[in-house]
Amino acid sequence: IPVFGLVRLLGLAAAAGILFWAVHYRGGMALSTNEESKLSIFNVHPVLMLIGLVALNGEALLAYKTVPGTKKLKKLVHLALQFFAMFLCIIGLWAVWKFHDERKIDHLYTLHSWLGLTCIIFFSLQWATGFWTFWYPGGSRSGRASLLPWHVFFGIFIYVLAIATSVSGLLEKSIFMQSTKMIGRFSTEAMFMNSLGMLLVVLGALVILAIVS
Amino acid sequence: IPVFGLVRLLGLAAAAGILFWAVHYRGGMALSTNEESKLSIFNVHPVLMLIGLVALNGEALLAYKTVPGTKKLKKLVHLALQFFAMFLCIIGLWAVWKFHDERKIDHLYTLHSWLGLTCIIFFSLQWATGFWTFWYPGGSRSGRASLLPWHVFFGIFIYVLAIATSVSGLLEKSIFMQSTKMIGRFSTEAMFMNSLGMLLVVLGALVILAIVS
Ligand code: HEM
Ligand code: HEM
Ligand code: HEM
Ligand code: HEM
Ligand SMILES: O=C1O[C@H]([C@@H](O)CO)C(O)=C1O
Repeated sequence: IPVFGLVRLLGLAAAAGILFWAVHYRGGMALSTNEESKLSIFNVHPVLMLIGLVALNGEALLAYKTVPGTKKLKKLVHLALQFFAMFLCIIGLWAVWKFHDERKIDHLYTLHSWLGLTCIIFFSLQWATGFWTFWYPGGSRSGRASLLPWHVFFGIFIYVLAIATSVSGLLEKSIFMQSTKMIGRFSTEAMFMNSLGMLLVVLGALVILAIVS
Repeated sequence: IPVFGLVRLLGLAAAAGILFWAVHYRGGMALSTNEESKLSIFNVHPVLMLIGLVALNGEALLAYKTVPGTKKLKKLVHLALQFFAMFLCIIGLWAVWKFHDERKIDHLYTLHSWLGLTCIIFFSLQWATGFWTFWYPGGSRSGRASLLPWHVFFGIFIYVLAIATSVSGLLEKSIFMQSTKMIGRFSTEAMFMNSLGMLLVVLGALVILAIVS
């Protein structure tokens, strides 16, 4: 069905969109900087989160339906993409944490950060239990069969949570910048960020549709 | 299964939570006021949105599984609860719109408001097509059967969107109040709002679980 092509296109558009935003509007990314605002450290966060937990995660969820070849190969792609996603999201979390430390901003005071931490913890647990049960050492036939529906349900839940968290991150970043007069309410950048948020919602709906149908 | 009882409990807790917040922390609600801030008009918005599009919508989605009696009765409860939800959400939208007009604040500049408007439009369309096809005048047997999976998919999508929109509304309200120093980052009220947001996520997951299982 052409939905897989569309999903890949939208996933790529979302990844390109957040990169473009970080580079074009926000002056680029760095893992360490002398600038006083430390904002280029922050910029690493949205880019890696969105590419990891939304774009790569989405591709990984569809791997059983898009990757040709043996079941073992599909599984390996699913598992490897999710591993890479987890790797990126941990660096992305580390970056925003470092930004907060260097600027002496409190940790974990927003609803976005609570959703985000929940998402990363669940994602890591899901990866570990998936690996343990379905790859190595692997559970019994009946153990696998009884875990699978929960694996799918939680996998979809975590994916939706990642989209909701990213949307909330875009929203709060835009509002922070508006309240400090860095950007205007109807500036091109604000409209770009809102559009990116809407794109994520559409992408999420299509990924779920492609999984269940 | 006890999940239906739990869902009802959490739905009630969410409704009570937003009411408590509006009354205890935010000074109550009014449809018209002389106060300069106009904030009691605003307060109508979160309460009606959350009770309508989250709590009542959730109950309505589960009606086919929780209401005893004939299919016709279940259908009537489903349809009537969704109608009431639509009614409340239109008043809730009108309230925030009026608040913005009276305070001369722009309309539709946030990602929250874009998500919200999309949600309300889709909800109304879903109600109208549902009514037309499944109640009066009613489609052909095959027309109903082919619409149903889409009705269910879109119904779940709209519900998830309502939760994500409410979460984003709680987040932005909290950040607006923090940036104008009305509340502190770790104030009881901020923590209460974050907890309410987390509760909505759990509620959403359980409602979907109850529908699909
Ligand atoms: C699934 C994806 C995401 C996750 C899991 C996530 C997670 C987090 C976490 C845990 C924090 C708290 C850091 C601390 O307290 O030191 C945070 C902060 C932040 N994130 Fe994200 N984030 C995600 C996506 C995004 C995106 C796409 C943006 C868009 C700009 C963003 C913007 C922010 C901002 C502005 C902060 C600092 C303010 C705050 O603590 O909320 N995030 N994020
Ligand atoms: C956080 C990481 C992960 C998430 C979010 C996740 C999520 C999902 C989802 C949503 C599905 C349903 C896909 C579909 O039906 O098209 C699925 C299937 C599956 N996943 Fe994962 N998964 C993760 C990690 C893993 C790992 C590490 C393994 C280890 C091999 C694994 C093994 C499987 C298997 C065996 C299936 C069933 C494929 C089938 O027979 O249809 N998953 N996963
Ligand atoms: C599904 C539920 C909700 C929907 C559909 C929704 C929809 C909307 C819409 C369309 C606007 C724009 C009004 C305008 O531009 O004049 C708005 C504004 C607003 N809403 Fe909501 N809302 C929902 C839930 C909430 C909740 C639970 C809160 C929590 C406090 C909230 C807080 C706000 C705030 C602060 C504004 C004004 C700032 C802005 O325009 O974003 N909303 N909402
Ligand atoms: C915005 C409003 C509505 C939403 C969000 C919505 C959503 C849903 C959902 C999610 C389901 C699946 C429930 C389950 O399987 O337990 C469902 C089933 C159904 N809905 Fe709606 N619905 C809405 C309005 C209506 C209206 C107005 C009617 C007119 C009678 C209707 C008729 C039905 C029917 C016939 C079913 C199938 C029940 C069955 O046989 O399992 N819906 N709806
Ligand atoms: O390892 C696996 O477990 C599930 C299934 O066999 C469980 O019944 C599946 O599809 C695998 O590839």
